[in-house]
Amino acid sequence: MALSEKIQEKIRKVEPYVPGEQPQRKVIKLNTNENPYPPAKGVEETLRKMEPDRLRLYPDPTANALVSELAERYGLRKDQVFVGVGSDDVLSMCFLTFFNSDLPILFPDITYSFYKVWAGLYRIPYECQPLDEEFHIRMEDYEKENGGIIFPNPNAPTSVGESLTMIEEILKKNQDSVVIIDEAYIDFADNTESAAALLERYENLLVVQTFSKSRAMAGMRIGFAMGNPELIRRLNDAKYSFNSYTMNLPSILCGVEAVKDQAYFEKRVNQIKETRAWAAEEFEKLGFTYPGLEANFLFVTHPEYQACEIFAQLKEHDIYVRYFPEGKLKDYLRITIGTREEMEALFDTLKKIMSKEN
Amino acid sequence: MALSEKIQEKIRKVEPYVPGEQPQRKVIKLNTNENPYPPAKGVEETLRKMEPDRLRLYPDPTANALVSELAERYGLRKDQVFVGVGSDDVLSMCFLTFFNSDLPILFPDITYSFYKVWAGLYRIPYECQPLDEEFHIRMEDYEKENGGIIFPNPNAPTSVGESLTMIEEILKKNQDSVVIIDEAYIDFADNTESAAALLERYENLLVVQTFSKSRAMAGMRIGFAMGNPELIRRLNDAKYSFNSYTMNLPSILCGVEAVKDQAYFEKRVNQIKETRAWAAEEFEKLGFTYPGLEANFLFVTHPEYQACEIFAQLKEHDIYVRYFPEGKLKDYLRITIGTREEMEALFDTLKKIMSKEN
Repeated sequence: MALSEKIQEKIRKVEPYVPGEQPQRKVIKLNTNENPYPPAKGVEETLRKMEPDRLRLYPDPTANALVSELAERYGLRKDQVFVGVGSDDVLSMCFLTFFNSDLPILFPDITYSFYKVWAGLYRIPYECQPLDEEFHIRMEDYEKENGGIIFPNPNAPTSVGESLTMIEEILKKNQDSVVIIDEAYIDFADNTESAAALLERYENLLVVQTFSKSRAMAGMRIGFAMGNPELIRRLNDAKYSFNSYTMNLPSILCGVEAVKDQAYFEKRVNQIKETRAWAAEEFEKLGFTYPGLEANFLFVTHPEYQACEIFAQLKEHDIYVRYFPEGKLKDYLRITIGTREEMEALFDTLKKIMSKEN
Repeated sequence: MALSEKIQEKIRKVEPYVPGEQPQRKVIKLNTNENPYPPAKGVEETLRKMEPDRLRLYPDPTANALVSELAERYGLRKDQVFVGVGSDDVLSMCFLTFFNSDLPILFPDITYSFYKVWAGLYRIPYECQPLDEEFHIRMEDYEKENGGIIFPNPNAPTSVGESLTMIEEILKKNQDSVVIIDEAYIDFADNTESAAALLERYENLLVVQTFSKSRAMAGMRIGFAMGNPELIRRLNDAKYSFNSYTMNLPSILCGVEAVKDQAYFEKRVNQIKETRAWAAEEFEKLGFTYPGLEANFLFVTHPEYQACEIFAQLKEHDIYVRYFPEGKLKDYLRITIGTREEMEALFDTLKKIMSKEN
């Protein structure tokens, strides 16, 4: 059946999208920045002991248990924390709540690809600001009048971090806008500080983080925002008014456990950082360069080898990395830091590919 | 800290909302139409045996396992089923996808309260159509030009069902609009048929159902839509373009189990229907009347007692039912069908309240 033309006219036009590859056979998966280690032990225990009878009831719409645990972990009050179904849900809710202006919102030209999508969805005007040659933000680009500001720090897919000093400058110069720092990768940063340190001083600041990377819970869909109580209240007002029950019971209960086990969290993050340091050296030995080293992935380029060819050949060897065929990015590969063993397999294969091509 | 005025201007205005009461002490909870019985046994087993390591990976964005199971259950093909995070998520996505017209969408004046909210959110014009004196839809109201049609069947909060014949008439007369039948309560209906029976004949039909009531999974957040492959494709296009990963791993895996166990499902639904039949008689004995008997709740009114007073007094006795203080609804109480024991406690208390007042 084909739909009638008049029905077609009433249907929203969107960019068709094909979900990322989910290969059925066993591959080395370094393409979506997942954590190579399982979540904290308490998560498993929570699943094992969860009372199924509780599932018949609606979940706590305030997700109080998880909000409390996060507040304690980050030294905040409960009214400074908002949780959602992955940071995509949190960020989308932020766009909807805070970017209601005729002035354009500002974000970098190379950044998380969903910012443009949500701006389109909520009819928010936006202006992309070009990064400099080293993939850094140019502060002067964020000094013009605007409807809001958002950027990831460290940035994706570059792994480049911006200084807290610069973020503070941007906050000071934009006291009439909400400034959102999207810190999906902050826990892996060595030289980039979380803007959460500035929360007490800037009422216009919102910091968004996720459980999908450093807490190894991409499959559970948990994200959160930290900000001043008034911003958090507005986020909750918006959320409750459109959909009261979004986060399910397993997410709330398992999320608590992932936050509680700080020792495990630090151990795994440090393991990934160690593997990253080693992998960075290995890339250098092979002649690759990268603009930053602040996330659980590397964004690498090679003067002699084409990124898309390496991408294709790695895939032939069942090693999946990420390639962006657009503009400046097309010379780079984004490669997630896996386990040491996975990275060794990557380098073995890279060496084979590169010796064959020469 | 108070936000600057210019920031306030940029913040979306929404109706402030206070989440429903979540009493900490043990009460008889007949206020949110939850199932009084636990979900299928397979749900518990799935939680027990879930591999926590899988949580580190993003969930399958297509939720293929759950879509397949639902398709099989309802005799459809996989490309005729869409799943989301509760039927609120599914319905919101339907509004966003199918109601992009300058013509108003049509729905009853007494209906699910979120329809107006989503219309407002997505700036969709709408016109409410009054129900008749018996809380039935008047078919002629749905014969005017429109941007789309949606209504629950059975309707909430009335428990009144509409005939398949009437729905078919509406579908025939609105071939240029998507018509959404919101069947949250259909599994409890004795005299109302699911519009799913019409899917093969009407390309403009979308049927939405939920796991929150008949499948006892409100805490897991699962809803689904059934429709022709072209409508389902458009829903998926919209969803993927804004947020690829919405349904978490426990929802997908446990959802499958809830659908698989048809014997358990039927047993529990029948138990609730039996309790409902008995409860309806008890209400009648006490002088209450109700317009319909098609859902897992009753919508009752009494000629001599004020609904809001009964509501308040039941609450004093730790029995929570639902009261809507607006317009025509203010003379009614919506009371979920709990276990036989819970309903007996309700009637004992009602009798006390009513004898005291007389």
